[in-house]
Amino acid sequence: MGSIGAGCGLMTSEPESDFVHHIALFAALLCACIVIGHLLEESKWMNESITALAIGLGTGSVILLTSGGKSSHILEFKQEFFFIYLLPPIIFNAGFQVKKKQFFQNFTTITSFGAFGTLISFAIISFGATRLFPKLGIDYLDIKDYLALGAIFSATDSVCTLQVLNQEETPLLYSLVFGEGVVNDATSVVLFNAITKFDLSDMNTIIALKFAGNFLSLFVLSTLLGVSVGLLCSFTIRTLYFGRNSTDREVSLMILMAYLSYVLAEVFGLSGILTVFFCGIVMSHYAWHNVTMNSQVTTKHAFATMSFIAEIFIFMYVGMDSLDVGKWRFVNNSPGKSFGASVVLLGLIMIGRACFVFPISIISNLTRTSEREKIGFKQQVTVWWSGLMRGAVSVALAYKKFTGSEEAMQPANALLITSTIIVVLFSTMVFGLLTKPIVKFLMPQSPNVDHSQPSSPTTSIMMPLLEYNAHVLETEIRDDDENVPITTSLHILFNNPTNTIHRYWRKFDNAIMRPVFGGRGFISYVTGSRDVPLI
Amino acid sequence: MGSIGAGCGLMTSEPESDFVHHIALFAALLCACIVIGHLLEESKWMNESITALAIGLGTGSVILLTSGGKSSHILEFKQEFFFIYLLPPIIFNAGFQVKKKQFFQNFTTITSFGAFGTLISFAIISFGATRLFPKLGIDYLDIKDYLALGAIFSATDSVCTLQVLNQEETPLLYSLVFGEGVVNDATSVVLFNAITKFDLSDMNTIIALKFAGNFLSLFVLSTLLGVSVGLLCSFTIRTLYFGRNSTDREVSLMILMAYLSYVLAEVFGLSGILTVFFCGIVMSHYAWHNVTMNSQVTTKHAFATMSFIAEIFIFMYVGMDSLDVGKWRFVNNSPGKSFGASVVLLGLIMIGRACFVFPISIISNLTRTSEREKIGFKQQVTVWWSGLMRGAVSVALAYKKFTGSEEAMQPANALLITSTIIVVLFSTMVFGLLTKPIVKFLMPQSPNVDHSQPSSPTTSIMMPLLEYNAHVLETEIRDDDENVPITTSLHILFNNPTNTIHRYWRKFDNAIMRPVFGGRGFISYVTGSRDVPLI
Repeated sequence: MGSIGAGCGLMTSEPESDFVHHIALFAALLCACIVIGHLLEESKWMNESITALAIGLGTGSVILLTSGGKSSHILEFKQEFFFIYLLPPIIFNAGFQVKKKQFFQNFTTITSFGAFGTLISFAIISFGATRLFPKLGIDYLDIKDYLALGAIFSATDSVCTLQVLNQEETPLLYSLVFGEGVVNDATSVVLFNAITKFDLSDMNTIIALKFAGNFLSLFVLSTLLGVSVGLLCSFTIRTLYFGRNSTDREVSLMILMAYLSYVLAEVFGLSGILTVFFCGIVMSHYAWHNVTMNSQVTTKHAFATMSFIAEIFIFMYVGMDSLDVGKWRFVNNSPGKSFGASVVLLGLIMIGRACFVFPISIISNLTRTSEREKIGFKQQVTVWWSGLMRGAVSVALAYKKFTGSEEAMQPANALLITSTIIVVLFSTMVFGLLTKPIVKFLMPQSPNVDHSQPSSPTTSIMMPLLEYNAHVLETEIRDDDENVPITTSLHILFNNPTNTIHRYWRKFDNAIMRPVFGGRGFISYVTGSRDVPLI
Repeated sequence: MGSIGAGCGLMTSEPESDFVHHIALFAALLCACIVIGHLLEESKWMNESITALAIGLGTGSVILLTSGGKSSHILEFKQEFFFIYLLPPIIFNAGFQVKKKQFFQNFTTITSFGAFGTLISFAIISFGATRLFPKLGIDYLDIKDYLALGAIFSATDSVCTLQVLNQEETPLLYSLVFGEGVVNDATSVVLFNAITKFDLSDMNTIIALKFAGNFLSLFVLSTLLGVSVGLLCSFTIRTLYFGRNSTDREVSLMILMAYLSYVLAEVFGLSGILTVFFCGIVMSHYAWHNVTMNSQVTTKHAFATMSFIAEIFIFMYVGMDSLDVGKWRFVNNSPGKSFGASVVLLGLIMIGRACFVFPISIISNLTRTSEREKIGFKQQVTVWWSGLMRGAVSVALAYKKFTGSEEAMQPANALLITSTIIVVLFSTMVFGLLTKPIVKFLMPQSPNVDHSQPSSPTTSIMMPLLEYNAHVLETEIRDDDENVPITTSLHILFNNPTNTIHRYWRKFDNAIMRPVFGGRGFISYVTGSRDVPLI
């Protein structure tokens, strides 16, 4: 193994004291973000992401002025930093906290939005950019750049919308937006990785098929790896620590194995994002039920905290980085190009999203028998709007693709990174600020809890078998067989495959998995029963 | 601000893929340490530190063999890594988890052990090494090296002993060992920093006085900074989040502000260790009571987990680093010197410790009226033994002092770093393995709870006023005044100053501090009452 002089986690080119100064300033700014973000939360418009961006911009300006226009950074990170340290906690937490019940209830719709929708969005953005960019005088991009652009800008950031939506009042909408966001993140990262790996310069059918195969195998293998590590962790904790009150060890093991799943995926050339997401789901389904009550509370909140810090970190960094003179210098002679490209991209994002949200919603509605289950037009608009923001994942992908070697900053790279920054800034600040008023306008019932709302009953009508209870499971399955009205073939297509698979999975989970790996039904009497949803 | 190309947290001199491989291996080994450490815990001898060392040694050997004797590392870290990332969580957690009641009850004795004892130990080791090293043919060390050696080897590691002692059965002994360990860490680091900053080449009275003044001001200012940041955090959380269920933000803010206190101290040239320790105490005394129940559980276990991971990380790294050929090459022509120096240092450690544990215990016993309160001879031997191990802090200090620039590795530095590694390895492995049997032999009552033991009653007899209860505080103080038998002047010296100060502090805390910064008495009815000891 190589003996590396550079410090892991440390700058190598600056003295320790400077580094400590910068860390201190960064930590202080993060604290300020949290405090100010909270103070502004009362307002109709703001949230922590916007606050972090604004503070980043403000600090960047100050640094730019004090350094005489030389730099706008406190610390400059390599793009790997985002992928190795900041993204894993965000995605793992998404998997860990996903309301599995709602998630799997609307699995088909969510997957349609998240996977097919992302692919449609990717195709439209890539194709649109290929056609429109040359008209702006941008002719130095190759096919790979356009495809990467498509992947980068199909990664949505639905945090703003989720902060406004209420999970209790509009569970269907909430699970759609949240679920889509997570599947979308994974899809766009896998897509991006497949693109950067493949030589797509001379596209033909065989290469396209190979690419699709590669994409699929990445998807499947990454998922399998995540599930395996999650199961290993569950098994280890169940075997070793069960009932022993070893909270610190349990939590350590969960954190380390989650991280291990991510880096293992990267080692094997798979998608760490997808792996760590499924690792999170499996851990919360099995391992989480094997640990002590204290570990349950700790993991739930510690993971959310890590994710929260990583997110404001990214937004603040983007705020500062957006003023980086090095990147702007290259586009200085043609600043219009960056802005033109950003406007084109924003337009394509809106069109690309509209092209799948409304059609998929309509198809999905065809399969839903009751009016109450359907995704109303206002809800469709909300789903559409919720995916217009671009955030941490887009930035991380763009940095990975376009800031490889700083010395060899190409004009193409400079253009694309500045456009990304403009799109992220604009969509987060402007769209983000508009989200609260728009959602309140579209969903006027949100402020006061209205129990006549369709969403909550929908849940219990649609999937009684999901209300899992070990000793009544069999009965429920039989009830379900008799009661579910099978009216249209589309209904069967959209709901029943999920239901049937789900039913077999339940039986399998119950008979094979839980006895080995643990889970709510099997040990809740020891750790105390908790009303946390599972699958 | 400088624009630094190097990635914070990333190697600069190796490709990303290699780095990810190494991280994956490291994460897997950490998981293995936790699992194997747990499996071996049942045995009479082992603990996680020893396991981590052993796994580190094993992995190091494998790497050494597979790399053809070139390297024994997976990753090589700069010494700053320990100080900026690994030590802060360990020390903060020590402050946060310290049983404040027992700690302040035995404050005088603990401070005597931790501060004066460390100074005595430091003096004996430095002086002894100055006299004995030249006899081994080691004549290339200057006065600063000897003083640094003294500071490095006066930092004890009492983790092994604490794992064996039972806090419920022998609370006095436990609080002595734990309290000493914490004060000792802080003292030795402050001492070390004072030494490395000062020019001590021509020692005279004025320089010695200046040095003492510097040491004291470092101590006081660092404490004040830690207390201030802790109070600021408590105040912020109380003002902003109180009763709002913002668990993630509360936890984020506590973590970030604790870390901020550490880096701020480093920025101001103070002792981050001491600062973050007191920040931890203040946070657990005020801020912890202002947060939600979930945040309380989360912080308690998340901080312990971070500290736990940091500790096994350090031990595993030491295990690997101990086989680093680069360091051994320099002492190759005279391997005897390193071993000779290590034997001398081990001897000095044992003598230095004996020189203060027994005298201070005897003086402390003179002040204790009841036989039950006294520190028995067996307990003294246990305290003495508990401080013979050298661990993470010694290693971090030695790395900081002796591995500045790898190219310019001096023979003196190579000798001292190898001696440190030998001492840490030997004391952790050999003394650590012997700890469980020895403590069980000295304290045979440990396995079965014996309530006739002196320690538990001692606590309640000695300090009834510490059993804090807001509405009976005044009565208790009056009772205490009448009942405590004041027999000797030494008793007054050792117990009463603490009591009196403590009593005024209580009044002050109650009247001024708690209403502003929160605390158990003032808000427990909101977050739920918890039987967690405070001061």
